[in-house]
Amino acid sequence: MTTEQQQLTDIRNQIDEIDRQIQVLIGERAKCAQKVADIKTQGGKVDAVFYRPEREAQVLRAVKERNDSVLPDESMAKLFREIMSACLALEQPVTVAYLGPEGSYSHASVLKQFGSSVVAHPVSTIEAVFEAVEKGEANYGLVPVENSSEGVVKSSQNELMRTRLKVSGEVEMEIHHCLMSQSLEHAQIKKVVAHQQALGQCEQWIKNHLPGAEVEAVESNALAAKMAQADATLAAIASEEAAQLYQLNILDRHIEDYHDNNTKFWVVGKDITQPSGLDKTSLIISIHNKAGALLDVLECFSKRNINMTRIISRPSTEKTWDYVFFIDVIGHKDDANLKEALDEVETKSAFYKLLGSFPVSPL
Amino acid sequence: MTTEQQQLTDIRNQIDEIDRQIQVLIGERAKCAQKVADIKTQGGKVDAVFYRPEREAQVLRAVKERNDSVLPDESMAKLFREIMSACLALEQPVTVAYLGPEGSYSHASVLKQFGSSVVAHPVSTIEAVFEAVEKGEANYGLVPVENSSEGVVKSSQNELMRTRLKVSGEVEMEIHHCLMSQSLEHAQIKKVVAHQQALGQCEQWIKNHLPGAEVEAVESNALAAKMAQADATLAAIASEEAAQLYQLNILDRHIEDYHDNNTKFWVVGKDITQPSGLDKTSLIISIHNKAGALLDVLECFSKRNINMTRIISRPSTEKTWDYVFFIDVIGHKDDANLKEALDEVETKSAFYKLLGSFPVSPL
Repeated sequence: MTTEQQQLTDIRNQIDEIDRQIQVLIGERAKCAQKVADIKTQGGKVDAVFYRPEREAQVLRAVKERNDSVLPDESMAKLFREIMSACLALEQPVTVAYLGPEGSYSHASVLKQFGSSVVAHPVSTIEAVFEAVEKGEANYGLVPVENSSEGVVKSSQNELMRTRLKVSGEVEMEIHHCLMSQSLEHAQIKKVVAHQQALGQCEQWIKNHLPGAEVEAVESNALAAKMAQADATLAAIASEEAAQLYQLNILDRHIEDYHDNNTKFWVVGKDITQPSGLDKTSLIISIHNKAGALLDVLECFSKRNINMTRIISRPSTEKTWDYVFFIDVIGHKDDANLKEALDEVETKSAFYKLLGSFPVSPL
Repeated sequence: MTTEQQQLTDIRNQIDEIDRQIQVLIGERAKCAQKVADIKTQGGKVDAVFYRPEREAQVLRAVKERNDSVLPDESMAKLFREIMSACLALEQPVTVAYLGPEGSYSHASVLKQFGSSVVAHPVSTIEAVFEAVEKGEANYGLVPVENSSEGVVKSSQNELMRTRLKVSGEVEMEIHHCLMSQSLEHAQIKKVVAHQQALGQCEQWIKNHLPGAEVEAVESNALAAKMAQADATLAAIASEEAAQLYQLNILDRHIEDYHDNNTKFWVVGKDITQPSGLDKTSLIISIHNKAGALLDVLECFSKRNINMTRIISRPSTEKTWDYVFFIDVIGHKDDANLKEALDEVETKSAFYKLLGSFPVSPL
């Protein structure tokens, strides 16, 4: 055996010993998870809640904070995400409805949030995601709520208004677009095809770089790439993977107008999430149409030093008020300070609906 | 705090302590992986091989063998699959080309074999998978080679004949089909649409249950489901997920003629795989067209007690011989016994090509 071979053998033996220890510990962890399930169902309780978003967020945050290994924080957190997912599946398999198809950004978000032991349940509309949770076909649903450049997703907002489901988590995904075509030159492109959201995210770029081209919205970016495969006067906006798949030339990368292009997804479910130590609270309000009314409401937060991370207004579909506001603040609804603020906001609003408190995403 | 809450808090503290220990060990493992990379590249070597299929197979087999935890063997192996995947990504990210789109069975096989830290690279044909590896755009390729009911995949066979790539791993995936339609009754179905492979896998079932219906092969099962959404006289064959996605009624489940319906995939790459302790060897031979010639070759294995797990014949495309045989045997090409057998087979064959030795799948 050469010195190199001997060195490699020694390290592999070390790795084997480490693996044995890791395995024993994962086994102990799984036994603990079973004990948790036993305690929760003792006395024949049937409505026990097994998935605890606040607990998972705490574990993942702790993993990232104490990580001093050569693995990136993200990779280490992902491994614990998988260990928790496997242990949770022992207690109770979790089904999550999402906007399909498989392989979409929504699907990737489900796996990011719940780990790969989740039962991912694709449906074809945002409304169907909510319905699946309401009917109990899925334990949770995951829906896109906002894109950093394109703004809010209306159907998700509508369903959040209508339904009694709670928001119990948030996931963010970075999204990048490429321009692709059979052609190798911009001059040959007569039309740009893509999903409406992608067209919106690249609007300025298209105007600047393809001033003469038409744009056409189609069902999905994958379909756009497929159309471009069949017609060299078309260019599609889609992911790098789509270009490979449909053998198209990538003319430009990262063509999104805002390079920090990401989509925020929310997890919706029936249960209230307990405090994790670093949470957000979301609510919908509408106010009477009189001068200073909004300011009056917002002061309920600011005078208590409560940070507002987002406020979005939209015209109401009801006659009785003019505007509806979607507001996110830092804190859990059970924090004394925020509880007081929310109580005050409720008295000052024409309509008030608490969507829920949930952990700030640790991933 | 109630007794139940106290019990849960105690167990959670135990889990936190276990997690801390697991994390320290994963960190040590990652450091070992880095040392392996350092040794392999010392002296400026650039062609070092980091992914070692035989080593991964050994680790996963050991994990399953010693598993006495409450987690199923499969779940435990999957967690170690992920830990190895993360550690390997530290040494060198591995890119694997496969037959897209994302979300296909091929994609699932890539993740099953390489873990989620792999860079999965979808391409649109089987030929393109081989090409991507030959050109060095991907470290490995993954291709379907055989379905348990439909038989071999011809384009993979052709490429294995043509190319100099080696087979370095196998993955098996179970595949289930459903019949789905807008209609709720079989009597309303005039035509069944699906990918050619799926139609073949359900041929008897269709003849028995929908004797009057036409069948039409389309590009993919996903497209078939989409067509069925638009036309209630159509039924599609596809996965349960597709029915959910396109809001079709599932009329029948598990309609594959052979319930043990699975597809075998092979990993192809440029490197030779070392023995893992439980391996297969694949070869292609052709023999002169004379009585007893095949028997003569097969005896080279049987007289040495070498198990043949598969033999597939196909007509040759070359004039100089009549039949080509794809043969799998148990053992590694460097095992003394098998080496002797292979040497003898080579002398007796008109054409002889060793496709490679690789670990019997531990997953």
